[in-house]
Amino acid sequence: MSDKLTRAECWHFLREHEFGRLAFHLAGEVHITPINYAVDGETLLFRTAQGNKLLGIVMSDDVAFEIDDHSGDRAWSVVVRGRARRLEGEEVYRAEHVGVRPWVGQDKHEVVEITPSEITGRRFEVSKPWEHIITGK
Amino acid sequence: MSDKLTRAECWHFLREHEFGRLAFHLAGEVHITPINYAVDGETLLFRTAQGNKLLGIVMSDDVAFEIDDHSGDRAWSVVVRGRARRLEGEEVYRAEHVGVRPWVGQDKHEVVEITPSEITGRRFEVSKPWEHIITGK
Repeated sequence: MSDKLTRAECWHFLREHEFGRLAFHLAGEVHITPINYAVDGETLLFRTAQGNKLLGIVMSDDVAFEIDDHSGDRAWSVVVRGRARRLEGEEVYRAEHVGVRPWVGQDKHEVVEITPSEITGRRFEVSKPWEHIITGK
Repeated sequence: MSDKLTRAECWHFLREHEFGRLAFHLAGEVHITPINYAVDGETLLFRTAQGNKLLGIVMSDDVAFEIDDHSGDRAWSVVVRGRARRLEGEEVYRAEHVGVRPWVGQDKHEVVEITPSEITGRRFEVSKPWEHIITGK
């Protein structure tokens, strides 16, 4: 069973978490990487290092981002699709205000903003039909 | 700090888990979705429903897949890049042998195989530099 999350619920989950996965194009290929992020207004911000392949998104700004969690028989996921751009000049300080930091202690001075064009989420029960067979329940 | 995982460690994590996120192209856009998977030999298998947008990967078979986990100050992630194809005929039974099932109880009769072309992983300490400021440690 699966229930759609409302847009407000999606934003709630996005604000409550700080670890997700970013999917992006690079030279015609699709890539995915875990990132630390923070919500700023109705955008997401993350840090990256100069020269990092994540900066490839300035050439192809179409991105998708996902967070999820599961425990016991309950799970949820939120998926964001949108556009990414590198913040420039004074804008970079927005990252200071919302406390987005790299989890891995490297010099990541570039800040990228994702502006969502589409946000979807779902909550579902983790049905594992084969457990009935194994445990005889 | 971040350490590269060996290829053997990556496969170990892939075999020990069953929940990840798939990134794929669809009509020129990048998409990401959580999926349940299982390892079969040196491939990954997952189930999807006919008509599901995941079947878009048969038109653009370049995909990326990620699993991760974090607890306390330790985290790791494994990223697979590769090619996807829909299994046909008798091949579909490979999914039965490795126990890949959809977590959400729907009719997902299609089986997709991902053959990795590149597997990378890293283990890292979750450094949150601002915690020193907050807690005064």
